[in-house]
Amino acid sequence: MSETPRLLRALGGETLDRPPIWFMRQAGRSLPEYRELRTRATDFIAFCHNPEMAAEATLQPMRRFPMDAAIVFADILLIPRALGQEVWFEAGEGPRLGELPDITRMAGEVEASTGRLSAIGETLARVRAELEPERALIGFAGGPWTVATYMIEGRGSNREAARTFAYEHPEKLDALLRVLVDSTARYLIMQARSGAQALKIFESWAEGLAEDVFERIVIGPHRAIIEQVRAAGVTAPFIGFPRGAGALVETYARAVPVEGVALDTQASAELGRRLQAGGKTIQGALDNLLLRAGGPALDARVETLLAQWSGGPYIFNLGHGVMPDTPIAHIARVVERVTGKPAKAVAAE
Amino acid sequence: MSETPRLLRALGGETLDRPPIWFMRQAGRSLPEYRELRTRATDFIAFCHNPEMAAEATLQPMRRFPMDAAIVFADILLIPRALGQEVWFEAGEGPRLGELPDITRMAGEVEASTGRLSAIGETLARVRAELEPERALIGFAGGPWTVATYMIEGRGSNREAARTFAYEHPEKLDALLRVLVDSTARYLIMQARSGAQALKIFESWAEGLAEDVFERIVIGPHRAIIEQVRAAGVTAPFIGFPRGAGALVETYARAVPVEGVALDTQASAELGRRLQAGGKTIQGALDNLLLRAGGPALDARVETLLAQWSGGPYIFNLGHGVMPDTPIAHIARVVERVTGKPAKAVAAE
Repeated sequence: MSETPRLLRALGGETLDRPPIWFMRQAGRSLPEYRELRTRATDFIAFCHNPEMAAEATLQPMRRFPMDAAIVFADILLIPRALGQEVWFEAGEGPRLGELPDITRMAGEVEASTGRLSAIGETLARVRAELEPERALIGFAGGPWTVATYMIEGRGSNREAARTFAYEHPEKLDALLRVLVDSTARYLIMQARSGAQALKIFESWAEGLAEDVFERIVIGPHRAIIEQVRAAGVTAPFIGFPRGAGALVETYARAVPVEGVALDTQASAELGRRLQAGGKTIQGALDNLLLRAGGPALDARVETLLAQWSGGPYIFNLGHGVMPDTPIAHIARVVERVTGKPAKAVAAE
Repeated sequence: MSETPRLLRALGGETLDRPPIWFMRQAGRSLPEYRELRTRATDFIAFCHNPEMAAEATLQPMRRFPMDAAIVFADILLIPRALGQEVWFEAGEGPRLGELPDITRMAGEVEASTGRLSAIGETLARVRAELEPERALIGFAGGPWTVATYMIEGRGSNREAARTFAYEHPEKLDALLRVLVDSTARYLIMQARSGAQALKIFESWAEGLAEDVFERIVIGPHRAIIEQVRAAGVTAPFIGFPRGAGALVETYARAVPVEGVALDTQASAELGRRLQAGGKTIQGALDNLLLRAGGPALDARVETLLAQWSGGPYIFNLGHGVMPDTPIAHIARVVERVTGKPAKAVAAE
């Protein structure tokens, strides 16, 4: 058997005897050991910028479950903070951001922003040093549009204000997206040089966009990021996740040179197979609400997903992140079904 | 030129010299004459059940704009109310519903529920009597799943509780959907017999559902409704609107014998053409936020939509409803571009 991590083989286009598996938000609040660790920092942003704590959070699910990949513990809003916008988290309410800084001023902060994110590079280096060689390490960033929605609206929302901004201030939005593309590309290059073996772009709010807008504010920026990362000599494969893009996922897959396309919960079997036939590795798309609910419906759905997509390059994952109140036994059951390996008990239980 | 209304010709599969046009929520808060009319009833539900007022609201946009179709002024939550669940509207907050009644008890109310909705039939008859013969009248109901989400959660929401309910209480949900299918089919039959010439099913919350769940709770109930309506001898064409279904729209179009498929804002040009090639009339998909924003971007997008879909059977419409604060001039401009006819000033302006 190859020593190349299973995740990277799948992203290289191989159809494997069984798909690699990891779960979005596998690290975090669903694990009691994370909830214990989290109490040691008062501030979530400070937690993300502490390589010791963030590396520990990244590794916690790897100790417990036979996941094929770890994803660095960080947040998509570290970039706006590094560019000079205030970011904080209200307990139980999610992120809040200060006023959108002047875009020209932020453009002047792009180079410095990467240095302000160096702790995340250190987290990656620590995790890579501890992780077994057959398990891959994933770096990530938010998609520029998704990050921009938070920067414009100041919080999570229905994105109506940001989508209207895209129509009413197209030049200003394009300028903001350029700053985010440049900062994100540098950040991902730094992550790859620090140990990330695959790079994921989370475009969490790709939903509800008209096709022309989607091409301008999602496809264009993703292409630009990948171009810059490749120009720096980084060869790590990309996974693009245009969540909620619906039928536009196919447009995305054709236009953006990602190796992998992450599919959300509503992906059809047919869509996935068309993407595989088009040369993409697909990832997804188990419903995170079903993972939490468990029971025979979960078992049946796992079999369906394995049956419908294992004939091509496939990474088993959720369609969205693990819900905080998901029973650990449900995660363990699915991971054991896919890998053939049981979960391990850990001290915090 | 045929006397058959342009909308019905399009739904009959004809490719026309120009598409018929109407807008979801063309009646309602975007019109000053509606806002004036609405003050005459204190309660929104009472307003919907008042044929004189509801007919007037239905006709208001027809007097102002050269729309090719009217849609009866009503609400998707009239059905749960007719089945015995309390429904009211909090000003500025949207619908609120009382506790979900016992499903077996509601099943016993199906026949009576149609009688409790007779005012909507009277509204349709009044509108049909006043409307020019070349302009079509559309009846509608909510999709059973969408209505069920409100009945289960008691309000508009992210549907997380309802989607979890679908996994944890599948038999109970199926029983609720059966009651809604039976009540909705009777309601639509009554609407067709009262003057509705086309019937639309608004499945506003089709988004985020896994494929197997979508088949069970959206496709199955829509098929069952259409089967019952056809069994009653009603031949009015159906428009299905699985909003947010993404790539599953194609699965829907193949499985549900609707004549028309309404596409939401993020529909791709390619998806629309594939549906047309598969024998469906398509409807949509102008961004309601762009209609509100206006300007050159709106003009350009209208041209794109006309160019990409006018080669097959097509109904020009929005991807979602008109926003209440949409300038009337923007609506008038788009309708004039599509129909070649100007809007008229009305007294309330």
